[in-house]
Amino acid sequence: MIDYKAPLKDMQFALRHNARLPQLAELPQFEEASDDMVSAILEEASKLAGEVLSPLNVVGDQTGVKLEGDDVPTPAGFADAYKQFAEGGWGSLQFEPEFGGQGLPYSLSIPVMEMWQSANMAWGLCPLLSQGAVEALAVNASDELKAQYLPQLISGEWTGTMNLTEPGAGSDLAAIRCKAEREGDHYRITGQKIFITWGEHDMTDNIVHLVLARLPDAPEGVKGISLFVVPKFMVNADGSLGERNDARCVSLEHKLGIHASPTAVMSFGDNDGAIGYLVGEENKGLACMFTMMNNARLAVGLQGVAISERAYQQALDYAGEREQAGVILRHADVRRMLLTMKALTEAGRALAYDACASLDFAHATGSKAENARAALLTPIVKGWCTELAQEVTSLGVQVHGGMGFIEETGAAQHYRDARILPIYEGTNGIQALDLVGRKTLFDKGEAAQALFTEMDSALNALQSTSGFEKEAERFATALTSAKEANAKLLEEGAKDRKWPGAIAFNYMMLMGTLAGGWQMARAAVAAQTAEGDETFLQAKTLTTRFYMAQILPRCQAYAATVMNGAEDILAMNDEQLASAWYS
Amino acid sequence: MIDYKAPLKDMQFALRHNARLPQLAELPQFEEASDDMVSAILEEASKLAGEVLSPLNVVGDQTGVKLEGDDVPTPAGFADAYKQFAEGGWGSLQFEPEFGGQGLPYSLSIPVMEMWQSANMAWGLCPLLSQGAVEALAVNASDELKAQYLPQLISGEWTGTMNLTEPGAGSDLAAIRCKAEREGDHYRITGQKIFITWGEHDMTDNIVHLVLARLPDAPEGVKGISLFVVPKFMVNADGSLGERNDARCVSLEHKLGIHASPTAVMSFGDNDGAIGYLVGEENKGLACMFTMMNNARLAVGLQGVAISERAYQQALDYAGEREQAGVILRHADVRRMLLTMKALTEAGRALAYDACASLDFAHATGSKAENARAALLTPIVKGWCTELAQEVTSLGVQVHGGMGFIEETGAAQHYRDARILPIYEGTNGIQALDLVGRKTLFDKGEAAQALFTEMDSALNALQSTSGFEKEAERFATALTSAKEANAKLLEEGAKDRKWPGAIAFNYMMLMGTLAGGWQMARAAVAAQTAEGDETFLQAKTLTTRFYMAQILPRCQAYAATVMNGAEDILAMNDEQLASAWYS
Repeated sequence: MIDYKAPLKDMQFALRHNARLPQLAELPQFEEASDDMVSAILEEASKLAGEVLSPLNVVGDQTGVKLEGDDVPTPAGFADAYKQFAEGGWGSLQFEPEFGGQGLPYSLSIPVMEMWQSANMAWGLCPLLSQGAVEALAVNASDELKAQYLPQLISGEWTGTMNLTEPGAGSDLAAIRCKAEREGDHYRITGQKIFITWGEHDMTDNIVHLVLARLPDAPEGVKGISLFVVPKFMVNADGSLGERNDARCVSLEHKLGIHASPTAVMSFGDNDGAIGYLVGEENKGLACMFTMMNNARLAVGLQGVAISERAYQQALDYAGEREQAGVILRHADVRRMLLTMKALTEAGRALAYDACASLDFAHATGSKAENARAALLTPIVKGWCTELAQEVTSLGVQVHGGMGFIEETGAAQHYRDARILPIYEGTNGIQALDLVGRKTLFDKGEAAQALFTEMDSALNALQSTSGFEKEAERFATALTSAKEANAKLLEEGAKDRKWPGAIAFNYMMLMGTLAGGWQMARAAVAAQTAEGDETFLQAKTLTTRFYMAQILPRCQAYAATVMNGAEDILAMNDEQLASAWYS
Repeated sequence: MIDYKAPLKDMQFALRHNARLPQLAELPQFEEASDDMVSAILEEASKLAGEVLSPLNVVGDQTGVKLEGDDVPTPAGFADAYKQFAEGGWGSLQFEPEFGGQGLPYSLSIPVMEMWQSANMAWGLCPLLSQGAVEALAVNASDELKAQYLPQLISGEWTGTMNLTEPGAGSDLAAIRCKAEREGDHYRITGQKIFITWGEHDMTDNIVHLVLARLPDAPEGVKGISLFVVPKFMVNADGSLGERNDARCVSLEHKLGIHASPTAVMSFGDNDGAIGYLVGEENKGLACMFTMMNNARLAVGLQGVAISERAYQQALDYAGEREQAGVILRHADVRRMLLTMKALTEAGRALAYDACASLDFAHATGSKAENARAALLTPIVKGWCTELAQEVTSLGVQVHGGMGFIEETGAAQHYRDARILPIYEGTNGIQALDLVGRKTLFDKGEAAQALFTEMDSALNALQSTSGFEKEAERFATALTSAKEANAKLLEEGAKDRKWPGAIAFNYMMLMGTLAGGWQMARAAVAAQTAEGDETFLQAKTLTTRFYMAQILPRCQAYAATVMNGAEDILAMNDEQLASAWYS
């Protein structure tokens, strides 16, 4: 097992050439984001990631977490690593200076977040969730609540959680039954939540739970959900901690991966009811939650990139050491695997960073187009980048041969850890539905059309770059097939409500694979004139060639399944599904 | 978690219509294999699988195995289940009556083997390996060795193992260093072997190790390897057990999956040297090992089908129970996942059974064409069916949503267990090399051409079947692209030795996906006139339509990557592979 080395060159290249950081730095809000500053931040973060968090990744997997009484002790080293993280101000990069943030672009915080997730995904979930809590409070909470909770969440003194899921209500938020009753300036919360990531731990003195619950007189369904802040310890007016709130972890899940990340069953109000404070307005909790969910979805897509990077580094190291009739790195099929890993990871990184940049541009300039672009790309980043993480971490196991199946090697941990990514923050089926429904059919394909126009420009640029004739042809083929699939979706989706849902997943994979190619095309064109490490720039060109030749043809298959339509997906009845055995 | 139900209807259908059992039963050797007999055997086997082995699957995963002194106690219930297996004569179906076998077709033993693997893959590896040992001895051993070992291996009184891999020599058998020294009528074996499946256990009184080792005067490389029988306990002339041999398990691996299957490090000759008996001729061990390896490869492909079936049953059951704005079974994307699982599993089953049938025809009639067909299909069955098992078991997790990531649900175990399949018995990279090299380039595409001719016939039959116009067109498209890829392989492979290795994996996936479509085409045509359960036959038709519309288009992508060639796979140098980070 080797420790993680942040791919600083690729991160900076993607920030500059895919995520348009130079343009962003021209905006008055972000003029501090100079190249030198970005370098300094990323290099400093890479030390914490590589030297502190990365060595704890295996320990965390092997030790896991257990509930002891009301407490969840974290694996050795985790709390200290968290302390270093907080002291370094790493949780505050992109937040408002008013509450102690550093006011940097969100997209600059993204490679830093990627590092934590590469180094130690189980640990990294804690700051990831805290960041979501900050976003939800910053946008929706009253000034008083903000003043009371944001500084400590942003500084990392406390951590935050998201409490959505209940037993029997997974992705279906309409089924939420947790209760909130009014009581003076606060509410009493009762009920149980499951799958609460980092719901209990010993790394900080307090934990701030954001909890969805329903008022007694709330309308049914998602329009009757409210969002509450429920702290583990009550917070006094002077900011000091008061009594223990009636909110407790009652058990932890035994999971396939991310063993060091406590996945809690949380019980609110087993005694008097947990005291909670309303965030935003009553019955408007879903909208509040969405502000954090959208960013969290991008962050989960980024986790897919992050764990892919880690799996690649591990596999490359092994392939360079392992002798089998010569070092296996030189075997053609091992090279195919490594290049697939590298190409998917870099394409995913470029796409995720660029999507995050759209949010910065939208926030800074109020651009509706950038906002729609971010909204369209979000399910693609979450869905496609987490699917590619399955492929890349599996290839990581495969490169190791028999050793890949042995837990001590470490490749299997990445494979197990990665498997949560297509599931949480909205399953990839839900992402695909979001993409075909709210993000495509709802605006009659407008945002998709704008994206295709951007891709047309990238294609033109590639065509005008000497030596990329084949690549341009391959990208053009994929782009055409995606446009056809998009037209078909708009046509059939207008006629039949079931059709889009049936083809949604393959449509998402089509758009993701294509968007990866688009980002690689942009990168290759930029690499021809960019200054910097020659080896890296040559590798970027060759990785793009590989992507276009060996990955992008998947678009033809995805597009064909979309064009073949929903009919054969929906034809079989329940009885036929189970007809191969005697019942 | 639900217990396994053998898909008897599909198994019998695949035997009859894909594996040509009626024609086989017309041969004098196999006239006993009547429909009634086949039904009776499969039904009886399904009881042991569903009622005894299946409930032990989770127990085995959770308990795992540990080395205690020299012994490896198996999880509760395992030894008793094995006793029932041996007493039922389940290990003897396809073997020679001379040594206690039942003389049935190999292809009839295949669905029975599938059941053990579906029910409990970790347990099922034990009889699978024993079967391989029987095959190696039956073909290669002296009459004396056969008489001494075959009856007990066939009856199941003893189990067998394959000892190939050594530390530092994975797939590269030329690097084997285990020593064998002549000593009278036997040999003394010394050395260490790793990854020995069921190398030690308490289910039987004796274990028969087949061990590759090198004589002092042996030529270098694979031409200097000999095969030896090394029993755990010496066998006296009267068949009773004598002294403990100097062959011991010294540790067990801690693995991602198949926790109940002991993966042993075996040490031979720590004291005086383990006593071994030569199988076949000196220095001809590799050929002996290949007789068992080829069948074992088919069996591992079958494990892919088996675990896919199990994952499908689990997912279908959950999807039918789980409510989320209606039962999730009715959600279009869940249906897509379930149908993908079902279609891949049934296509894989039909292909695996048919490949095994070729071995029966070849053995019974001496047909060289059937032999070449089996040889061509073997790496496809091993490679493609184990890759599809990754997809199917992952979809099985995904259908469960968040519950899929929780170990208690059971879906994650199938996912973990399945991950070994693309690795052992020759990694899928090695299968792909075998397919493009020894099985295609070596005979200048003759066997591949014969297969394409069979597929042309199946296409004609589909075209002549009313209502399958679209499916015929889709199959024709895939078939054409595979023929083009095959021609390209023959052309480029003749010019450049590195080219075939670089495109091998995608070529294998192309051939597998196409061959699955071919088998489904045959099945659909047969289903139109077959007698039997109407619901099942309708489902077969609809599954075929789904396969052709939603799975088969992958051939276009695989073919395109082959046509795009090796260039972009081999262009990058070692330094460039690691150029994204500072070293």
